Amino acid sequence: MDNACDPRLQRAFDPRCVAIVGATEDRNKVGGRPLHYLQRFGFAGRIYPLNPKRDAVQGLKAWASLAALPETPDVAIVAVGQDQVPEVIRQCAARGIGAAVVMSSGFGETGAEGRARQQALVDDARRLGVRMIGPNAQGIANFATGAVLNFSTMFMEVPPQDGPVAIVSQSGAASVMPYAMLRERGVGVRYLVASGNDADASVCELALAAAADPAIRVVLLYIESLADPAMLAEVARVVRARGAAVVALKSGRSARGAQAAASHTGAMVNDDVVVDAFFERHGIRRAADVHGLVNTTELLLATGLQPARRLVVMSHSGAVGVLCADAAEPLGLPLAELAPATVQSLSTIMPSFATAQNPVDLTAGLLTNGGMYAHTLEVLAADPQADMFLIGVPVAGEGYDVAGMARDTAHLLRSTGRPVAVSAPQAAVREAFRAEGVPTFPHESDAIEALDQLSRHALLQQQAVRRAARPPSAALAALRLPAPAAGRFLSEAASLAALAAAGVPLAPHRLCHSPEEAVAAWQALGGDAVVKACSSALPHKSEHGLVFVGVASEAALHEAYRLCVERTAALGAPLEGVIVAQRVHGRREFALGARHDARFGTVVMVSDGGKYVEALADFAVLLHPFSEQDVIDKLQRLRIAPVLAGVRGEAPVDLDVVARCAVALAELVDAQQGAIASVDLNPLIAGSRGEGGWAVDAVIEMGALS
Amino acid sequence: MDNACDPRLQRAFDPRCVAIVGATEDRNKVGGRPLHYLQRFGFAGRIYPLNPKRDAVQGLKAWASLAALPETPDVAIVAVGQDQVPEVIRQCAARGIGAAVVMSSGFGETGAEGRARQQALVDDARRLGVRMIGPNAQGIANFATGAVLNFSTMFMEVPPQDGPVAIVSQSGAASVMPYAMLRERGVGVRYLVASGNDADASVCELALAAAADPAIRVVLLYIESLADPAMLAEVARVVRARGAAVVALKSGRSARGAQAAASHTGAMVNDDVVVDAFFERHGIRRAADVHGLVNTTELLLATGLQPARRLVVMSHSGAVGVLCADAAEPLGLPLAELAPATVQSLSTIMPSFATAQNPVDLTAGLLTNGGMYAHTLEVLAADPQADMFLIGVPVAGEGYDVAGMARDTAHLLRSTGRPVAVSAPQAAVREAFRAEGVPTFPHESDAIEALDQLSRHALLQQQAVRRAARPPSAALAALRLPAPAAGRFLSEAASLAALAAAGVPLAPHRLCHSPEEAVAAWQALGGDAVVKACSSALPHKSEHGLVFVGVASEAALHEAYRLCVERTAALGAPLEGVIVAQRVHGRREFALGARHDARFGTVVMVSDGGKYVEALADFAVLLHPFSEQDVIDKLQRLRIAPVLAGVRGEAPVDLDVVARCAVALAELVDAQQGAIASVDLNPLIAGSRGEGGWAVDAVIEMGALS
Repeated sequence: MDNACDPRLQRAFDPRCVAIVGATEDRNKVGGRPLHYLQRFGFAGRIYPLNPKRDAVQGLKAWASLAALPETPDVAIVAVGQDQVPEVIRQCAARGIGAAVVMSSGFGETGAEGRARQQALVDDARRLGVRMIGPNAQGIANFATGAVLNFSTMFMEVPPQDGPVAIVSQSGAASVMPYAMLRERGVGVRYLVASGNDADASVCELALAAAADPAIRVVLLYIESLADPAMLAEVARVVRARGAAVVALKSGRSARGAQAAASHTGAMVNDDVVVDAFFERHGIRRAADVHGLVNTTELLLATGLQPARRLVVMSHSGAVGVLCADAAEPLGLPLAELAPATVQSLSTIMPSFATAQNPVDLTAGLLTNGGMYAHTLEVLAADPQADMFLIGVPVAGEGYDVAGMARDTAHLLRSTGRPVAVSAPQAAVREAFRAEGVPTFPHESDAIEALDQLSRHALLQQQAVRRAARPPSAALAALRLPAPAAGRFLSEAASLAALAAAGVPLAPHRLCHSPEEAVAAWQALGGDAVVKACSSALPHKSEHGLVFVGVASEAALHEAYRLCVERTAALGAPLEGVIVAQRVHGRREFALGARHDARFGTVVMVSDGGKYVEALADFAVLLHPFSEQDVIDKLQRLRIAPVLAGVRGEAPVDLDVVARCAVALAELVDAQQGAIASVDLNPLIAGSRGEGGWAVDAVIEMGALS
Repeated sequence: MDNACDPRLQRAFDPRCVAIVGATEDRNKVGGRPLHYLQRFGFAGRIYPLNPKRDAVQGLKAWASLAALPETPDVAIVAVGQDQVPEVIRQCAARGIGAAVVMSSGFGETGAEGRARQQALVDDARRLGVRMIGPNAQGIANFATGAVLNFSTMFMEVPPQDGPVAIVSQSGAASVMPYAMLRERGVGVRYLVASGNDADASVCELALAAAADPAIRVVLLYIESLADPAMLAEVARVVRARGAAVVALKSGRSARGAQAAASHTGAMVNDDVVVDAFFERHGIRRAADVHGLVNTTELLLATGLQPARRLVVMSHSGAVGVLCADAAEPLGLPLAELAPATVQSLSTIMPSFATAQNPVDLTAGLLTNGGMYAHTLEVLAADPQADMFLIGVPVAGEGYDVAGMARDTAHLLRSTGRPVAVSAPQAAVREAFRAEGVPTFPHESDAIEALDQLSRHALLQQQAVRRAARPPSAALAALRLPAPAAGRFLSEAASLAALAAAGVPLAPHRLCHSPEEAVAAWQALGGDAVVKACSSALPHKSEHGLVFVGVASEAALHEAYRLCVERTAALGAPLEGVIVAQRVHGRREFALGARHDARFGTVVMVSDGGKYVEALADFAVLLHPFSEQDVIDKLQRLRIAPVLAGVRGEAPVDLDVVARCAVALAELVDAQQGAIASVDLNPLIAGSRGEGGWAVDAVIEMGALS
């Protein structure tokens, strides 16, 4: 299955002709609802209800079979008993129908037997060339054409309206909840997809079919299990290419998550964190909940994504200004500094504006000075620092020119093209602004959060565009790693050698095979060394007493060598040599890990190091390809970032070397295409800025493809 | 001003007779609105509009002066020009009026001149015995009696309804925003106060007057500046005593905050963090924004505060269950384990329930099995693990028995008395549940956040009750600290001696006055010492090179001694001796600080220690009095908590000694009643659990009252 959009699915989203297998009279039954909806919402194509027992269903002629139809439907709704579904799919194929929305349940969702039935059904459908949505699907809907092949009760209750939004969900409930919330805000929705068991066409492939419509500006996804990230990456690419946005709610964050992984650092990185990195990589904003999924939609539709972040707040209440500043600060959203010219102009509107600051407080003067609102907005619009606007209307009504304020705000929005949000607790006031096309919110926090997310999403997309896939390094692809002597790990010496080939700077060391060699190495390295046994059978040396730090005399060196030999032998492990390494003194330890993930590609983790790596869990995850700057950006958001920047006169820690190593690990693992399962580099000791750093220990775990 | 409720203010909240000085015909003017409201909302007492130029105002006889009135009003509204206010207050006093709501502006909010005018006004009013609300106040309102002495536009637009809620705010806008949000949810509000400049009666005193009404179950506060915490503590006490709740929104979190403080640890604790500790101390929940201020109100009114936290989620959608689990986990809200008997009973309702888990998924079976909803709730209600319930209704309408579901849910609420929240994106569905008295929310996250806050608030109140004020330690009160030799700091030796008196364990040390004494001390202490110059003029020794670590030979000791003498002399500081201290080896360093705060009492900070105390800002703040267990609870919420608990076989760090020292510092500073401005204990080195710990260095800063 490639990532192009399947025309059979696209026709299912915009059919001229629909068959309903299992159509019923009762509009509250699965087989009756879509038929009701198709007629209720004005579907202009042909509708063929199939019901062999009746002449007519819901006022339309009933047909006995697909074979009997006078034309080939673009899509069939399948609402029959579970046992009849395979036969219906065969009939679809025989009639040349390219896609079926299978609403019937009793498949993969019911257990092992159901899963087997489902697999057989999928195999059949694929062999016969019928694309299947479902089974157990609530269905799809196109509210532009009324092609509502969906049985949700929601559209009986909350009337649809076409709009540039697609909602694509694995769950029925999670498809109609955002729908209801958007409709309550007056936002129109074109496509609504609840894909059910996702057995053939995945939720991501269906999203691609909806996203192919160039009118769609916002794609909202609800995903429980992300089976084909590559397809989702394609959705993101298509949507991004026209400056539109994908927002995704991936649930199941709280599932016990940490995947078994060979490296202990790798174990910190559970699937959910990788999903975060994947979304980030592709410019998809991840929402935390259904509210977060829909909360930016009005802004996205009004002005699209805009990366600039400096916020201007205006209100006729000082308290609203304070509350907005409080809400903006924890998000890192800066309030714009007003330009002197702006303050000057404002002071001509109102004397107290002579000391105008952002937030701008119109005071009760708003009630007595008719032109003040429009005039102030005009002045603020001209300020080059003002990237986006929040207008707080804590109270309005009798005595206020609400309609005029709404018009003036709409003018600000259209004339500047910059994001504008109005916050108002009164539904009637929101209605007045919304009628003029202004995004509105019930309170400041929602409004500010939405503005923040809008600009962050824009920055995310910009970065996604910059991070085009790179071809793997030919040299690293050609690198032949030794087979592990025992088990699946390379020895420290072999692991370090591979890292060196990838460009990772190492602490000076030698692999020695005799005490004499060790003494020579120790002397050459300066007489202050770390001595370690090297065996691919013992990737975790410390716990076996095979690491000797601060070996500062020949006697100590001999003793360490002897113990390496003795203890390795006692453990029954082959000793590949003894490593004598220079003891390096840097500023801070880091732990880096990289692993090959079959679904997501090369995943890299960069973490604060030391004894408490896992306990303190201060780490960042990136997906290949990424730049050194990407790594530095992530490091600067760690909790230890203030320490890395240098405290009380300290020089900053050399983050460049950390970034370089993270990129090197990614390139190595990527180039080896599965030959390497994981790399654990711990510690990397970084010096002060400009001094570089030294990889001190590493373990490479070979993969199934090695 | 003591903390009892002033009867003059209480009469202003429940007057029988109101005068309006400056009453106008135009109901959109400040002097016209309250007159309009008093009549519109059915105030049954007497209303006396004062307007010397007219015979009647808004249909009521106008009076020329307060002196002319036939009776003494309980309260006067003052809506005249700023320059006339002082005279009106004098007339109020002459007429025996005990309280005035001064709506006139032009006082403290306008600058220095206005502040002077305001102070004169307050002085006058106090001298004359008139309690003043304002100036610049939007006013007060009692919707039980229609005594609406308030000019906000909001009540023209959003009709009031009496209910057991009081909103008390310094800001007009921040009083009506929560009002509008609550009214939109169908919640009634009795008192609404916008206190303006707070010049005489503070927002806290007004809250006390409103809270005195035993019908009030929820007090919502908006505070910009907390001038009299003692009064707020009294509000909290009164409200807590009847099991009701205070929720406060204290804005200005983002203001550049860190107060100048002598100790560098103290500098981390800005006012806002102390406010957090103060609220916690008194069982007041702090809301982050206006939404958070109102979001728990329905739950509070339905069942009151309940400390138990185990949540049961039920829905007819699996996705809603997953979303709820995702929302609950980051809040630390546990999903209840269903009892085996519960699972057994559920399986009689629905076969698939044989493996029922929480979240409970009713599936589409809800539509076909009429009694299933009620029956399932009945079974869940009987489960002793079920402390609170979230029922997700992602979609409902035609085909669903929504009214029946609402009745069944109300029955669950009433029969168990436990918190129940319904989450539904459709306004009509929420309406149906609300009509039965069930708290409803538009989405799962709001509902779960509210349930979480409800139980956290209950726990907070329980702790507040336990933390009764203790009399200061007589021994510590009697402790006479030496006067600082220079400046305002005690020397290390004197500081440590005071801490020892308070019960803080010290690292063994001696203050020596000759090299010979130092040698003797060094030997007695084991020959591995830290040597420090002791001078009250040099509280920060390290930066002057006056600390010598690891002095392990007599020669080194002599050299250190010599340098102490030489460097102190070079700095022109009096040397009070040289401290020779045993070098202690523990597990972890902590930094503790305590200071005397004029408004909040004794504030204590406990922080992770080491070089990066300030950069990593991992600390907790407590207000005296608190228990050792309170400190341990706080330490267990630090970011370093996993490390303190012991990682990979390590013993846990001895937190008891940290807790003991924090309580000791608090008792010392409290007992000294301002004689000590601050104590900085850094580091306290703690051993493994059971080993105790050692204070290694400390500085006491003497206060103005010493």
